[in-house]
Amino acid sequence: MGAQFRYEALETWLEQGIREQRWGSGERLPSIRALCREHGLSKATVQHALQRLESRGLIETRPKAGHFVAVRPLNVAQPVSRARIEPPRPVTVNELLLDIMGRNAAFDLLPALHETAPPPGIVALNRAIARALRRPSQGSYQYYDAPAGDIGLREQLTVGMARRGCRLGVDALCITSGCQNALFLALMASCSRGDIVAVESPGFYGVMQLLEHLELQVIEIPSAVDWGMDLEALHAVLQRWPVRACIVSPSFATPGGALMPDAAKQRLLALADEFDLAVIEDDIYGDTGFTSVPDPLKGMDRYQRVILCSSFSKSLSRDLRLGWISGARWHDRILQIKLVTQLAGSRSVQQGVAAFLADGGYAAHLRRERGRLREQRDQLRTMLDDWPGDVRVSVPDGGLAVWVELPEGIDTLAAYPRALAQGVVITPGPLFSASGQFGNCLRLSFAHPWSQARRQALAVLPEIFGLTPANGGDERRPA
Amino acid sequence: MGAQFRYEALETWLEQGIREQRWGSGERLPSIRALCREHGLSKATVQHALQRLESRGLIETRPKAGHFVAVRPLNVAQPVSRARIEPPRPVTVNELLLDIMGRNAAFDLLPALHETAPPPGIVALNRAIARALRRPSQGSYQYYDAPAGDIGLREQLTVGMARRGCRLGVDALCITSGCQNALFLALMASCSRGDIVAVESPGFYGVMQLLEHLELQVIEIPSAVDWGMDLEALHAVLQRWPVRACIVSPSFATPGGALMPDAAKQRLLALADEFDLAVIEDDIYGDTGFTSVPDPLKGMDRYQRVILCSSFSKSLSRDLRLGWISGARWHDRILQIKLVTQLAGSRSVQQGVAAFLADGGYAAHLRRERGRLREQRDQLRTMLDDWPGDVRVSVPDGGLAVWVELPEGIDTLAAYPRALAQGVVITPGPLFSASGQFGNCLRLSFAHPWSQARRQALAVLPEIFGLTPANGGDERRPA
Repeated sequence: MGAQFRYEALETWLEQGIREQRWGSGERLPSIRALCREHGLSKATVQHALQRLESRGLIETRPKAGHFVAVRPLNVAQPVSRARIEPPRPVTVNELLLDIMGRNAAFDLLPALHETAPPPGIVALNRAIARALRRPSQGSYQYYDAPAGDIGLREQLTVGMARRGCRLGVDALCITSGCQNALFLALMASCSRGDIVAVESPGFYGVMQLLEHLELQVIEIPSAVDWGMDLEALHAVLQRWPVRACIVSPSFATPGGALMPDAAKQRLLALADEFDLAVIEDDIYGDTGFTSVPDPLKGMDRYQRVILCSSFSKSLSRDLRLGWISGARWHDRILQIKLVTQLAGSRSVQQGVAAFLADGGYAAHLRRERGRLREQRDQLRTMLDDWPGDVRVSVPDGGLAVWVELPEGIDTLAAYPRALAQGVVITPGPLFSASGQFGNCLRLSFAHPWSQARRQALAVLPEIFGLTPANGGDERRPA
Repeated sequence: MGAQFRYEALETWLEQGIREQRWGSGERLPSIRALCREHGLSKATVQHALQRLESRGLIETRPKAGHFVAVRPLNVAQPVSRARIEPPRPVTVNELLLDIMGRNAAFDLLPALHETAPPPGIVALNRAIARALRRPSQGSYQYYDAPAGDIGLREQLTVGMARRGCRLGVDALCITSGCQNALFLALMASCSRGDIVAVESPGFYGVMQLLEHLELQVIEIPSAVDWGMDLEALHAVLQRWPVRACIVSPSFATPGGALMPDAAKQRLLALADEFDLAVIEDDIYGDTGFTSVPDPLKGMDRYQRVILCSSFSKSLSRDLRLGWISGARWHDRILQIKLVTQLAGSRSVQQGVAAFLADGGYAAHLRRERGRLREQRDQLRTMLDDWPGDVRVSVPDGGLAVWVELPEGIDTLAAYPRALAQGVVITPGPLFSASGQFGNCLRLSFAHPWSQARRQALAVLPEIFGLTPANGGDERRPA
């Protein structure tokens, strides 16, 4: 996904090693000389990479001793996975979500601000769509689009997937009205009423709602905010209950931005084959990766069991409403369900987006966007540093949000109306569980610039939550 | 819907009287003098209206005797309603439809022609959307639209509905991805798996498919191509089976263009209240009415039982993918299901369409479009006149298609591949029935200009069907 400087490549390699615990907490990294030799780099390049890792709090430099993985890799403590495994059950989702969505607020503390000038990528995108709409030969108004969607857009999408190690034919893709719509199609095609579906916990509220409306049963699998679903827990569940499908977000899962390691992906696919599962992969955050874009699970799908679902809503525009699905052995059924539930999409819009992709507009947009998101993530972390009490925050390397764990006893759901009274819309933790867990957690987004108004909105939250230094003391900082 | 000339108003009034059989077949109309007096019109105006009716084949002038309703009001015989009532059953829809849709062909014999220059209305529409996309303050890319859709578009839609005698608040409307999507939401909200749904027969194939995918049972109610659903038959069915919902298209139902009389609408609503039904109104063809735009059933909905579903796909653009729904007592549930199955629509596109409506672009487009469709309908009728054998054709006053009934024994489904081999895509009758009825029927659209190529495509069909003058003789013409 675009050329990297040599120091960036090394930085990424080292960071991945730290995340995968090739070098554990407090452990010494290879020497500068060893890194120069193994990677064919100059000393200056290696030092540049190390300085960047240090500035990000991932490593520490000890004079004369070398470079060490930070004891707490980041300044703010990471949340601890704590979901309970409970038997499968029907779902009832908190109606709060409708309120939050009604305020256009899923990713903004201050949705009233709303009007911001669009970045150059959005200007170029909208220009491309406008051009497609005005093509003089435009006869689309008299014809429904093909059920699978515009072939030009599908071609562009396969090019993007191939760059991520996932080779798909255009016939393996179907365009949808966004990722939520793709998840709906995936569940409609692979499950029947009453079936059990395993989900990440904490996990995406949109999935919980789908399960409710399709009258499916849910089983929540504990998921760590850095590594994703606990596959040992999944295995135990599969041995006990007849699970039909498993929904995962291997690349920067919401709410915490977890990244599933490759070994875990392999394990998941083996379990899927052993227990006859559909694996529904929500890849919506994949393209946002700040340092690298992970390969999707779908690329390893040798059993034709992975239904890839994605869209441009997180990486490009939430107003575009264009997603896609690749349905493995369920693909024909997915095409039929799309036809039946909405006939077709807008070909003009798809052609505009295809042109934007082909012209490199999307790649350029992503380059700018990743830098912006990473900076906004870091600004949020810095501000959260000032919150009193035992506050744990995930440090995702992609996505649009962090997962914040407040001290036990704090109730973010009860705080919602209090925050709203001050014009601030929060996303409480229990939305991310089908059983109302994570009452002391919330998701905080860094999708928007930290303007003065948003900084002030964030600053009122500790008091609204009743956070004090006494809440669990101030033990979160490493020595 | 726009100013009418005085002669047009009289023409419409007389035509309605004929359709409602105020004056039966062969009966004498009021004298010119009586019409002048009762309507406060000049003799020239009355004569102009009568001449137009005569030229359309609706009435005959007999010198010295007066004006009479044509014995066969139109030159081509009308199909006869013949659906059988069968017990409720699960649905399996012919896979042919996926093939037809894959060829972008639901309304075109020759979809390969495809590229035609758009009319001025579409140019203006696309310009309005392009403008909305390029608004400098456009911040929509970072926010999902509200679950109910853009308020400006909803306001414009309520204005249009009010003109048709249907007063709705903006909160009673929800924007959808087209009418099929609205029908899906209506069924999801009002029915549960296994419920029985009454449908028109022949009726819209999209509804049959929805019933199949939602695992609902269907019961087909015989429906006349001019008057719509037989409410006596519906009543008998309601007394016998626990029907949950009834889907009707009171205004120009596909395939034949039937128009439900007001008295029948009242009867249907009374039955709905007596038998606790949801009435799902598919109004997608309403705005196409050639001589007048009928009031929707929804306007009479005093029991909050009518779920109105519609879109711009037939009256404006099939590429727009914008519909709407007004869900009566099921509306809150519909909003939730929309949120869950696709989150939101594109606000920019909705704002563009709202501006197009507010500027009068839609009204102007409809004025042009109605004339064009009526002319193309008449051209099709003239061509069908030349078909040999007993061919019966509906004469709709709106919509995009006629229903053609060929002699018994002719199999339009079997003819599909033969037509396709010559590049012609037909829409066989059995698609319009959940039980494969209407094997000797087909829907023929007049949505597209009758270019030389399309005339030739139509001309090959009699031979493909094996039509000969011997098939039922040539009895269809009136004396």
